[in-house]
Amino acid sequence: MEGLKQHQRSLVIRTRGRGFTEITEHLRATVRESGVRQGLCVVYCAHTSCSLVIQENADPSARHDMERWLERIAPERDPTYTHTAEGPDDMPSHLRSMVTKTSETIPVRDGKPAMGTWQGLFLCEHRAREHNRQLLVHVIGS
Amino acid sequence: MEGLKQHQRSLVIRTRGRGFTEITEHLRATVRESGVRQGLCVVYCAHTSCSLVIQENADPSARHDMERWLERIAPERDPTYTHTAEGPDDMPSHLRSMVTKTSETIPVRDGKPAMGTWQGLFLCEHRAREHNRQLLVHVIGS
Amino acid sequence: MEGLKQHQRSLVIRTRGRGFTEITEHLRATVRESGVRQGLCVVYCAHTSCSLVIQENADPSARHDMERWLERIAPERDPTYTHTAEGPDDMPSHLRSMVTKTSETIPVRDGKPAMGTWQGLFLCEHRAREHNRQLLVHVIGS
Repeated sequence: MEGLKQHQRSLVIRTRGRGFTEITEHLRATVRESGVRQGLCVVYCAHTSCSLVIQENADPSARHDMERWLERIAPERDPTYTHTAEGPDDMPSHLRSMVTKTSETIPVRDGKPAMGTWQGLFLCEHRAREHNRQLLVHVIGS
Repeated sequence: MEGLKQHQRSLVIRTRGRGFTEITEHLRATVRESGVRQGLCVVYCAHTSCSLVIQENADPSARHDMERWLERIAPERDPTYTHTAEGPDDMPSHLRSMVTKTSETIPVRDGKPAMGTWQGLFLCEHRAREHNRQLLVHVIGS
Repeated sequence: MEGLKQHQRSLVIRTRGRGFTEITEHLRATVRESGVRQGLCVVYCAHTSCSLVIQENADPSARHDMERWLERIAPERDPTYTHTAEGPDDMPSHLRSMVTKTSETIPVRDGKPAMGTWQGLFLCEHRAREHNRQLLVHVIGS
Protein backbone atom coordinates (compact mmCIF):
# COMPACT_ATOMS: atom_id res chain seq x y z
CA MET A 1 0.00 0.00 0.00
CA GLU A 2 2.14 2.91 1.16
CA GLY A 3 5.46 2.10 -0.45
CA LEU A 4 7.57 4.37 1.73
CA LYS A 5 10.93 5.40 0.34
CA GLN A 6 13.80 7.60 1.43
CA HIS A 7 16.46 9.81 -0.10
CA GLN A 8 19.56 11.34 1.48
CA ARG A 9 21.94 13.91 0.10
CA SER A 10 24.72 16.03 1.50
CA LEU A 11 25.01 19.73 0.73
CA VAL A 12 27.95 22.06 1.11
CA ILE A 13 26.96 25.66 1.79
CA ARG A 14 29.52 28.43 1.57
CA THR A 15 28.84 31.06 4.23
CA ARG A 16 30.18 34.60 4.06
CA GLY A 17 31.08 34.88 7.73
CA ARG A 18 28.74 35.71 10.58
CA GLY A 19 25.11 35.96 9.54
CA PHE A 20 22.07 34.04 8.31
CA THR A 21 22.06 32.50 4.81
CA GLU A 22 18.71 31.38 3.44
CA ILE A 23 18.79 27.79 2.15
CA THR A 24 15.08 27.13 1.61
CA GLU A 25 15.59 26.61 -2.12
CA HIS A 26 18.18 23.86 -1.49
CA LEU A 27 15.66 22.09 0.71
CA ARG A 28 12.92 22.38 -1.89
CA ALA A 29 15.22 21.02 -4.60
CA THR A 30 16.19 18.01 -2.49
CA VAL A 31 12.58 17.19 -1.70
CA ARG A 32 11.77 17.51 -5.43
CA GLU A 33 14.56 15.14 -6.47
CA SER A 34 13.47 12.61 -3.82
CA GLY A 35 10.14 12.13 -5.57
CA VAL A 36 8.42 12.13 -2.17
CA ARG A 37 4.98 13.78 -2.30
CA GLN A 38 4.00 13.29 1.33
CA GLY A 39 6.34 12.62 4.24
CA LEU A 40 9.08 14.28 6.27
CA CYS A 41 12.32 16.04 5.49
CA VAL A 42 15.12 16.51 7.99
CA VAL A 43 17.98 18.99 7.61
CA TYR A 44 21.01 18.27 9.78
CA CYS A 45 23.94 20.60 10.45
CA ALA A 46 27.18 18.66 11.09
CA HIS A 47 28.93 21.50 12.96
CA THR A 48 29.05 23.04 16.43
CA SER A 49 29.67 26.68 15.49
CA CYS A 50 26.86 27.18 12.97
CA SER A 51 23.22 26.18 13.26
CA LEU A 52 19.78 26.18 11.67
CA VAL A 53 16.76 28.41 12.21
CA ILE A 54 13.35 28.61 10.55
CA GLN A 55 12.29 32.23 10.73
CA GLU A 56 10.84 35.18 8.87
CA ASN A 57 12.32 35.55 5.39
CA ALA A 58 10.34 38.54 4.15
CA ASP A 59 12.00 41.51 5.81
CA PRO A 60 15.83 41.58 6.14
CA SER A 61 15.52 43.77 9.24
CA ALA A 62 14.09 40.82 11.20
CA ARG A 63 17.12 38.72 10.29
CA HIS A 64 19.42 41.59 11.24
CA ASP A 65 17.82 41.91 14.66
CA MET A 66 18.02 38.14 15.25
CA GLU A 67 21.75 38.19 14.45
CA ARG A 68 22.36 41.17 16.78
CA TRP A 69 20.33 39.61 19.59
CA LEU A 70 22.29 36.36 19.48
CA GLU A 71 25.47 38.45 19.65
CA ARG A 72 24.15 40.20 22.76
CA ILE A 73 23.00 37.15 24.72
CA ALA A 74 26.27 35.28 23.99
CA PRO A 75 28.82 38.05 23.45
CA GLU A 76 32.44 37.81 22.41
CA ARG A 77 35.20 38.32 24.99
CA ASP A 78 33.08 37.48 28.01
CA PRO A 79 35.73 37.29 30.76
CA THR A 80 34.08 34.16 32.22
CA TYR A 81 34.86 32.04 29.13
CA THR A 82 37.64 29.49 29.62
CA HIS A 83 37.45 27.99 26.09
CA THR A 84 39.37 30.72 24.29
CA ALA A 85 42.13 28.92 22.37
CA GLU A 86 40.28 29.04 19.04
CA GLY A 87 39.69 32.80 19.03
CA PRO A 88 37.14 35.22 20.50
CA ASP A 89 34.39 34.17 18.07
CA ASP A 90 34.56 30.45 18.92
CA MET A 91 32.89 30.08 22.33
CA PRO A 92 30.06 32.50 21.45
CA SER A 93 29.50 30.37 18.32
CA HIS A 94 28.94 27.25 20.40
CA LEU A 95 26.51 29.09 22.69
CA ARG A 96 24.54 30.64 19.83
CA SER A 97 24.37 27.21 18.16
CA MET A 98 23.23 25.55 21.38
CA VAL A 99 20.10 27.74 21.67
CA THR A 100 19.17 27.49 18.00
CA LYS A 101 18.90 24.20 16.04
CA THR A 102 21.20 21.37 14.99
CA SER A 103 18.38 19.88 12.91
CA GLU A 104 14.98 20.89 11.63
CA THR A 105 12.21 18.45 10.68
CA ILE A 106 9.54 19.64 8.25
CA PRO A 107 6.54 17.74 6.89
CA VAL A 108 6.37 17.29 3.11
CA ARG A 109 3.03 17.92 1.42
CA ASP A 110 2.30 18.00 -2.31
CA GLY A 111 5.98 17.33 -2.99
CA LYS A 112 7.15 20.43 -1.08
CA PRO A 113 8.33 21.26 2.44
CA ALA A 114 5.11 22.45 4.09
CA MET A 115 6.57 25.67 5.47
CA GLY A 116 4.43 28.68 6.30
CA THR A 117 4.13 31.70 4.02
CA TRP A 118 6.73 33.75 5.87
CA GLN A 119 9.04 30.94 6.90
CA GLY A 120 12.51 30.51 5.46
CA LEU A 121 15.19 27.99 6.47
CA PHE A 122 18.47 29.68 7.40
CA LEU A 123 21.95 28.41 7.99
CA CYS A 124 23.33 30.64 10.76
CA GLU A 125 27.08 31.12 10.57
CA HIS A 126 28.31 32.15 13.99
CA ARG A 127 32.03 32.30 13.22
CA ALA A 128 33.41 35.62 12.00
CA ARG A 129 34.93 34.21 8.80
CA GLU A 130 33.46 32.39 5.82
CA HIS A 131 33.28 28.59 5.95
CA ASN A 132 32.19 25.63 3.87
CA ARG A 133 29.44 24.00 5.93
CA GLN A 134 28.23 20.42 5.56
CA LEU A 135 24.52 19.73 5.78
CA LEU A 136 22.64 16.48 5.34
CA VAL A 137 19.08 16.38 4.02
CA HIS A 138 17.02 13.22 4.51
CA VAL A 139 13.58 12.80 2.95
CA ILE A 140 11.25 9.92 3.83
CA GLY A 141 7.71 9.30 2.66
CA SER A 142 5.70 8.21 -0.35
CA MET B 1 7.48 -7.63 8.11
CA GLU B 2 7.17 -4.03 9.15
CA GLY B 3 4.61 -2.52 6.77
CA LEU B 4 5.36 1.09 7.63
CA LYS B 5 2.63 3.64 7.02
CA GLN B 6 2.18 7.36 7.54
CA HIS B 7 -0.57 9.83 8.31
CA GLN B 8 -0.58 13.63 8.09
CA ARG B 9 -3.15 16.12 9.31
CA SER B 10 -3.27 19.85 9.76
CA LEU B 11 -4.63 21.43 12.93
CA VAL B 12 -5.77 24.97 13.57
CA ILE B 13 -5.31 26.11 17.16
CA ARG B 14 -6.91 29.31 18.40
CA THR B 15 -4.62 31.06 20.86
CA ARG B 16 -5.82 33.64 23.36
CA GLY B 17 -2.89 36.01 22.94
CA ARG B 18 0.49 35.73 24.61
CA GLY B 19 0.93 32.53 26.60
CA PHE B 20 1.30 28.76 26.42
CA THR B 21 -1.64 26.61 25.29
CA GLU B 22 -1.41 22.89 25.98
CA ILE B 23 -2.08 20.79 22.86
CA THR B 24 -1.02 17.34 24.09
CA GLU B 25 -4.53 15.95 23.61
CA HIS B 26 -4.57 17.01 19.94
CA LEU B 27 -1.33 15.13 19.44
CA ARG B 28 -2.67 12.01 21.15
CA ALA B 29 -5.82 12.10 19.05
CA THR B 30 -3.84 12.38 15.80
CA VAL B 31 -1.59 9.47 16.75
CA ARG B 32 -4.68 7.44 17.64
CA GLU B 33 -6.40 8.12 14.31
CA SER B 34 -3.21 7.21 12.43
CA GLY B 35 -3.41 3.64 13.69
CA VAL B 36 0.36 3.69 14.29
CA ARG B 37 1.34 1.67 17.38
CA GLN B 38 5.12 2.19 17.17
CA GLY B 39 6.91 4.94 15.29
CA LEU B 40 7.45 8.69 15.34
CA CYS B 41 5.21 11.73 15.41
CA VAL B 42 6.31 15.19 14.33
CA VAL B 43 4.48 18.40 15.18
CA TYR B 44 5.36 21.36 12.98
CA CYS B 45 4.49 25.01 13.59
CA ALA B 46 4.09 26.95 10.34
CA HIS B 47 4.68 30.40 11.87
CA THR B 48 7.54 32.63 12.95
CA SER B 49 5.93 34.38 15.91
CA CYS B 50 4.66 31.37 17.83
CA SER B 51 6.49 28.14 18.66
CA LEU B 52 6.41 24.78 20.39
CA VAL B 53 7.75 23.65 23.74
CA ILE B 54 7.55 20.36 25.62
CA GLN B 55 7.59 21.24 29.30
CA GLU B 56 6.04 20.65 32.68
CA ASN B 57 2.23 20.56 32.54
CA ALA B 58 1.45 19.84 36.19
CA ASP B 59 1.87 23.20 37.90
CA PRO B 60 0.66 26.38 36.13
CA SER B 61 3.28 28.41 38.01
CA ALA B 62 6.05 26.76 35.96
CA ARG B 63 4.34 27.83 32.74
CA HIS B 64 3.87 31.32 34.11
CA ASP B 65 7.58 31.61 34.95
CA MET B 66 8.59 30.32 31.49
CA GLU B 67 6.41 32.96 29.82
CA ARG B 68 7.83 35.73 32.00
CA TRP B 69 11.41 34.58 31.44
CA LEU B 70 11.02 34.62 27.65
CA GLU B 71 9.63 38.15 27.98
CA ARG B 72 12.71 39.18 29.94
CA ILE B 73 15.39 37.70 27.67
CA ALA B 74 13.72 39.13 24.54
CA PRO B 75 11.82 42.19 25.79
CA GLU B 76 9.49 44.50 23.94
CA ARG B 77 10.68 47.97 22.93
CA ASP B 78 14.38 47.16 23.00
CA PRO B 79 15.87 50.30 21.39
CA THR B 80 18.29 48.19 19.34
CA TYR B 81 15.48 46.56 17.29
CA THR B 82 15.22 47.79 13.71
CA HIS B 83 12.30 45.51 12.72
CA THR B 84 9.53 47.53 14.33
CA ALA B 85 6.97 48.10 11.55
CA GLU B 86 4.65 45.30 12.72
CA GLY B 87 4.34 46.54 16.31
CA PRO B 88 6.29 46.23 19.55
CA ASP B 89 5.32 42.57 20.10
CA ASP B 90 6.58 41.39 16.69
CA MET B 91 10.37 41.30 16.94
CA PRO B 92 10.33 39.80 20.46
CA SER B 93 8.01 37.10 19.04
CA HIS B 94 10.60 36.10 16.44
CA LEU B 95 13.35 35.96 19.07
CA ARG B 96 11.28 33.92 21.55
CA SER B 97 10.34 31.54 18.70
CA MET B 98 13.96 31.24 17.59
CA VAL B 99 15.14 29.87 20.96
CA THR B 100 12.20 27.51 21.41
CA LYS B 101 11.01 24.99 18.78
CA THR B 102 9.56 25.09 15.27
CA SER B 103 9.01 21.32 15.43
CA GLU B 104 9.03 18.56 18.02
CA THR B 105 9.61 14.88 17.25
CA ILE B 106 8.28 12.31 19.71
CA PRO B 107 8.50 8.51 19.55
CA VAL B 108 5.20 6.61 19.45
CA ARG B 109 4.88 3.56 21.70
CA ASP B 110 1.76 1.46 22.35
CA GLY B 111 -0.19 3.80 20.07
CA LYS B 112 0.63 6.92 22.11
CA PRO B 113 3.23 9.70 22.06
CA ALA B 114 5.82 8.38 24.54
CA MET B 115 6.03 11.57 26.58
CA GLY B 116 7.19 11.59 30.19
CA THR B 117 4.79 11.77 33.12
CA TRP B 118 5.15 15.53 33.59
CA GLN B 119 5.59 16.50 29.95
CA GLY B 120 3.00 18.45 28.02
CA LEU B 121 3.22 19.84 24.47
CA PHE B 122 2.54 23.56 24.35
CA LEU B 123 1.88 25.99 21.55
CA CYS B 124 3.53 29.23 22.67
CA GLU B 125 1.80 32.31 21.34
CA HIS B 126 4.30 35.18 21.44
CA ARG B 127 2.10 37.86 19.86
CA ALA B 128 -0.03 39.95 22.21
CA ARG B 129 -3.32 39.20 20.47
CA GLU B 130 -5.19 35.97 19.74
CA HIS B 131 -4.45 34.15 16.50
CA ASN B 132 -5.46 31.07 14.54
CA ARG B 133 -2.28 29.02 14.26
CA GLN B 134 -1.61 26.28 11.71
CA LEU B 135 0.16 23.14 12.85
CA LEU B 136 0.95 19.99 10.91
CA VAL B 137 1.18 16.61 12.59
CA HIS B 138 2.89 13.75 10.76
CA VAL B 139 2.90 10.19 12.11
CA ILE B 140 5.01 7.41 10.63
CA GLY B 141 5.44 3.86 11.84
CA SER B 142 3.64 0.53 12.01
CA MET C 1 12.84 -1.85 -3.21
CA GLU C 2 13.43 0.05 -0.02
CA GLY C 3 12.10 -2.27 2.67
CA LEU C 4 12.07 0.34 5.44
CA LYS C 5 12.21 -0.92 9.01
CA GLN C 6 12.31 0.64 12.47
CA HIS C 7 13.72 -0.09 15.89
CA GLN C 8 12.99 1.53 19.23
CA ARG C 9 14.72 1.14 22.56
CA SER C 10 14.65 2.93 25.87
CA LEU C 11 17.82 3.90 27.70
CA VAL C 12 18.34 4.87 31.31
CA ILE C 13 21.23 7.24 31.88
CA ARG C 14 22.52 7.94 35.37
CA THR C 15 23.60 11.56 35.66
CA ARG C 16 25.94 12.82 38.36
CA GLY C 17 24.07 16.05 39.06
CA ARG C 18 24.31 19.28 37.11
CA GLY C 19 26.42 19.01 33.97
CA PHE C 20 26.67 17.50 30.49
CA THR C 21 27.10 13.72 30.06
CA GLU C 22 28.19 12.50 26.65
CA ILE C 23 25.93 9.72 25.32
CA THR C 24 27.13 9.48 21.71
CA GLU C 25 28.28 5.89 22.20
CA HIS C 26 24.81 4.82 23.37
CA LEU C 27 23.35 6.32 20.21
CA ARG C 28 25.90 4.55 18.00
CA ALA C 29 25.21 1.22 19.70
CA THR C 30 21.45 1.58 19.21
CA VAL C 31 21.85 2.42 15.53
CA ARG C 32 24.17 -0.58 15.16
CA GLU C 33 21.72 -3.00 16.77
CA SER C 34 18.90 -1.66 14.58
CA GLY C 35 20.64 -2.93 11.45
CA VAL C 36 19.70 0.32 9.69
CA ARG C 37 22.40 1.45 7.24
CA GLN C 38 20.67 4.58 5.92
CA GLY C 39 17.86 6.47 7.61
CA LEU C 40 17.15 8.61 10.64
CA CYS C 41 17.63 8.25 14.37
CA VAL C 42 15.73 10.26 16.95
CA VAL C 43 16.73 10.63 20.58
CA TYR C 44 13.97 11.76 22.90
CA CYS C 45 14.31 12.98 26.47
CA ALA C 46 11.23 12.20 28.58
CA HIS C 47 11.89 14.87 31.24
CA THR C 48 11.40 18.60 31.77
CA SER C 49 14.49 19.35 33.89
CA CYS C 50 17.16 17.78 31.71
CA SER C 51 17.66 18.10 27.97
CA LEU C 52 19.77 17.20 24.94
CA VAL C 53 22.46 19.13 23.10
CA ILE C 54 24.73 18.27 20.19
CA GLN C 55 27.92 20.21 20.72
CA GLU C 56 31.69 20.13 20.73
CA ASN C 57 33.04 17.03 22.46
CA ALA C 58 36.78 17.61 21.96
CA ASP C 59 37.69 20.17 24.60
CA PRO C 60 36.07 19.92 28.08
CA SER C 61 36.46 23.69 28.52
CA ALA C 62 33.76 24.27 25.87
CA ARG C 63 31.36 22.07 27.82
CA HIS C 64 32.26 23.87 31.03
CA ASP C 65 31.53 27.26 29.49
CA MET C 66 28.19 26.05 28.08
CA GLU C 67 27.14 24.83 31.53
CA ARG C 68 28.14 28.12 33.16
CA TRP C 69 26.41 30.20 30.50
CA LEU C 70 23.11 28.33 30.95
CA GLU C 71 23.43 28.97 34.69
CA ARG C 72 23.85 32.68 34.01
CA ILE C 73 20.97 33.19 31.58
CA ALA C 74 18.56 31.22 33.83
CA PRO C 75 19.99 31.64 37.33
CA GLU C 76 18.87 30.08 40.58
CA ARG C 77 16.97 32.15 43.14
CA ASP C 78 15.72 34.75 40.68
CA PRO C 79 13.22 36.69 42.82
CA THR C 80 10.71 36.79 39.96
CA TYR C 81 10.20 32.99 39.96
CA THR C 82 6.86 31.85 41.41
CA HIS C 83 7.43 28.10 40.85
CA THR C 84 9.70 27.50 43.83
CA ALA C 85 8.09 24.59 45.72
CA GLU C 86 10.48 21.98 44.29
CA GLY C 87 13.67 23.79 45.30
CA PRO C 88 15.89 26.54 43.90
CA ASP C 89 17.31 24.32 41.11
CA ASP C 90 13.90 23.36 39.69
CA MET C 91 12.65 26.43 37.81
CA PRO C 92 16.07 27.16 36.27
CA SER C 93 16.10 23.53 35.09
CA HIS C 94 12.88 24.02 33.16
CA LEU C 95 14.20 27.22 31.57
CA ARG C 96 17.55 25.69 30.59
CA SER C 97 15.71 22.69 29.12
CA MET C 98 13.33 24.94 27.21
CA VAL C 99 16.13 26.65 25.26
CA THR C 100 18.05 23.43 24.53
CA LYS C 101 16.49 20.27 23.04
CA THR C 102 13.85 17.72 24.04
CA SER C 103 14.77 15.63 20.99
CA GLU C 104 17.50 15.46 18.39
CA THR C 105 17.13 13.92 14.92
CA ILE C 106 20.25 12.72 13.15
CA PRO C 107 20.58 11.08 9.72
CA VAL C 108 22.07 7.60 9.63
CA ARG C 109 24.67 6.89 6.95
CA ASP C 110 26.78 3.76 6.55
CA GLY C 111 25.15 2.32 9.67
CA LYS C 112 26.22 5.23 11.89
CA PRO C 113 24.74 8.53 13.10
CA ALA C 114 26.17 10.99 10.56
CA MET C 115 27.47 13.46 13.12
CA GLY C 116 30.30 15.86 12.37
CA THR C 117 33.88 15.29 13.49
CA TRP C 118 33.60 17.46 16.58
CA GLN C 119 29.99 16.75 17.45
CA GLY C 120 28.97 14.80 20.53
CA LEU C 121 25.46 14.13 21.86
CA PHE C 122 25.07 15.24 25.46
CA LEU C 123 22.42 14.67 28.08
CA CYS C 124 22.32 17.92 30.07
CA GLU C 125 21.33 17.41 33.68
CA HIS C 126 20.03 20.71 35.01
CA ARG C 127 19.05 19.55 38.52
CA ALA C 128 21.71 19.81 41.22
CA ARG C 129 21.55 16.13 42.22
CA GLU C 130 22.08 12.90 40.32
CA HIS C 131 19.11 11.30 38.57
CA ASN C 132 18.19 8.28 36.47
CA ARG C 133 17.00 9.75 33.18
CA GLN C 134 14.82 7.97 30.61
CA LEU C 135 15.62 8.41 26.94
CA LEU C 136 14.00 6.80 23.91
CA VAL C 137 15.94 6.14 20.73
CA HIS C 138 14.03 5.42 17.52
CA VAL C 139 15.77 4.38 14.32
CA ILE C 140 14.00 4.18 10.95
CA GLY C 141 15.46 3.37 7.56
CA SER C 142 16.81 0.53 5.48
